[in-house]
Amino acid sequence: MTAKRHLSAYGYEQTKALAFTQYGEPKDVLKLHSHSIPPASKDLVTLRFLASPINPADINQIQGVYPSRPTFSTTLGAPEPTAVGGNEGVAEVLSVGGNVKNFSRGDWVVMRLPGFGTWRTHAQTTVENLVRITDKTDLSPVQVGTASINPCTAYRMLLDFVSPNPDKNDWFIQNGANSGVGRAAIQLGKLWGYKSINIIRARADEAETERTKNELLALGADIVITDAEAQSREFRSQVAEWTNGGREKVRLALNCVGGPLVNSMAKILADSSRVVTYGAMSRKPVSVPASLQIFKDIGFDGFWVSRWAEAHPEQKAKTLEHVLQLTREKKFVDVPVSETRWDYETKGETLIEAVQGTLDGFRHGKGVFVFGNT
Amino acid sequence: MTAKRHLSAYGYEQTKALAFTQYGEPKDVLKLHSHSIPPASKDLVTLRFLASPINPADINQIQGVYPSRPTFSTTLGAPEPTAVGGNEGVAEVLSVGGNVKNFSRGDWVVMRLPGFGTWRTHAQTTVENLVRITDKTDLSPVQVGTASINPCTAYRMLLDFVSPNPDKNDWFIQNGANSGVGRAAIQLGKLWGYKSINIIRARADEAETERTKNELLALGADIVITDAEAQSREFRSQVAEWTNGGREKVRLALNCVGGPLVNSMAKILADSSRVVTYGAMSRKPVSVPASLQIFKDIGFDGFWVSRWAEAHPEQKAKTLEHVLQLTREKKFVDVPVSETRWDYETKGETLIEAVQGTLDGFRHGKGVFVFGNT
Repeated sequence: MTAKRHLSAYGYEQTKALAFTQYGEPKDVLKLHSHSIPPASKDLVTLRFLASPINPADINQIQGVYPSRPTFSTTLGAPEPTAVGGNEGVAEVLSVGGNVKNFSRGDWVVMRLPGFGTWRTHAQTTVENLVRITDKTDLSPVQVGTASINPCTAYRMLLDFVSPNPDKNDWFIQNGANSGVGRAAIQLGKLWGYKSINIIRARADEAETERTKNELLALGADIVITDAEAQSREFRSQVAEWTNGGREKVRLALNCVGGPLVNSMAKILADSSRVVTYGAMSRKPVSVPASLQIFKDIGFDGFWVSRWAEAHPEQKAKTLEHVLQLTREKKFVDVPVSETRWDYETKGETLIEAVQGTLDGFRHGKGVFVFGNT
Repeated sequence: MTAKRHLSAYGYEQTKALAFTQYGEPKDVLKLHSHSIPPASKDLVTLRFLASPINPADINQIQGVYPSRPTFSTTLGAPEPTAVGGNEGVAEVLSVGGNVKNFSRGDWVVMRLPGFGTWRTHAQTTVENLVRITDKTDLSPVQVGTASINPCTAYRMLLDFVSPNPDKNDWFIQNGANSGVGRAAIQLGKLWGYKSINIIRARADEAETERTKNELLALGADIVITDAEAQSREFRSQVAEWTNGGREKVRLALNCVGGPLVNSMAKILADSSRVVTYGAMSRKPVSVPASLQIFKDIGFDGFWVSRWAEAHPEQKAKTLEHVLQLTREKKFVDVPVSETRWDYETKGETLIEAVQGTLDGFRHGKGVFVFGNT
């Protein structure tokens, strides 16, 4: 945290940002942009980023297919309106203007809303855009920088779409269980008394599938199966076996995949349960049989943590604090990450490759920029 | 209401019931069954039916494809377990046993739950199965006998899935607008301040389509269009026009059809609105795009008035009373009916034809058995 600063002759921060001026594939439109930031004055704070993840939604945003648009502005000193990639991250306060209250040098902050642009070494902003981390004890930048989106998504879906006091025999089921949200749901569900049936995509390499299963079991998953197993004829009777002949109920389904796999999940739910969709990795729609809706009262909802955070800013801050508290107590383990170090000298192509790599095939762990000597 | 009674030498009520011993097509499995009922004693009441509608769900129940099963019993005096068709209806109390409180001769009653079997001239039962109509002033048997299912369905969907205090510019949209539920929704919505976009199926005979449009407009519909119009490219811009450039919001969609028509409705909803499915006339599932769910927070629920009534018996009784009150005040008009009179002498084939006719093509008005001299 005591990185060397790169200052100009006038005390301006020499900064870099991974930015774009038009929508397209990251490798085609992202450029590493250099500019400088004057000392923070009045209501402004200057931030130095510590860790910023690369989420799939960040890629969709650069492609122009994500409903939450980035902020295009000329404040980077570029000749045309430019947006900085990335929506999540943690930064350290380097300096504060004279009017700033409640934020001090050395504080850690995360972004209140998406669209801030977190793939940059530094930023200058007003404090309305920031949430201060009240206690960073025993937490790493990667832990804090990846807590806002995936763990909060899992947290709210498990609490807001079922009873917050599950019976000790209640279950939930999810697909994409290996995702950041999936791993968070397994752990939070376990803490709150839910058992879980977890569906993962079968890999060509069986040993890889087995390894993922074991990872999720170690996190607290009760059952881990492949998508093929979930769509097999035996699935229903297996569920009955796991749930003590159906005496235990599956009360929630979390879906980030889409397509017919969702029907397999919906069919084994207890009456009056909900299927919550927060992603669509297969790009296939969910086909809902009317009978499930009418006669079993199965509801199909969507969840988008950005919308929720915008509507419930205080609850968002509390949720994040709770996730960080659980992390600190080692009750909640962050996802495996694949770090890309970003120093002052790091080349643009290295950074852009890290972004593009999120799109291309499998990578073990979530991509994160970890800022070093910037 | 002072029909001649058909009593046996021992004072037994000579009664008839349209009944079946196995599932199948109504014309194949329904038989007009004669039996007799002893005088009501102890906790029993004897009922004489006044009006019993023929709902499409009644047919599905006879076909064995409806989740609410009829009650098969040997109380009709038949050699094998026999079920009586029909789930809705109004009856008059003919006599009460000595232990019966709060019900008297001459009272009108409706069934608390489906599965009672209402296509019969008489029945004997305990009062837990009945809801007493507290005020039948100015109401006809057909009005009371058809109020439990369709109007209550529309009533709850309009109240329970959107704010009960709509802004005066709020809209809802529905398909199958010509159905009993659809007609009830138009009228109740209007009373509660909702404007409505109503989708009907285009008939081969254009004059017929036009006639239906005019009927719904006369009930209070703001817009009536055909399914083809709702699926046209211009639909979205037309909705914008109707809703004052989108400043007025469409906050609810009611679906009893299914298939792609539902997507046309869902796409024009305001963020965080719900699509409520209560039927599936096209037998096609609803295909839900994830983006509508996640980014627009459009939820897809089902509604089944039988389940709701079972869970909320008091609210059900109040809802029914309110519908009847609105009917009495002429604020709510019952659906057009196609009456089949059922007298002591009426032949089984006439009655069975009336049931089968509900399946075959279009009939203007809802089929209802109106009991005469039984």
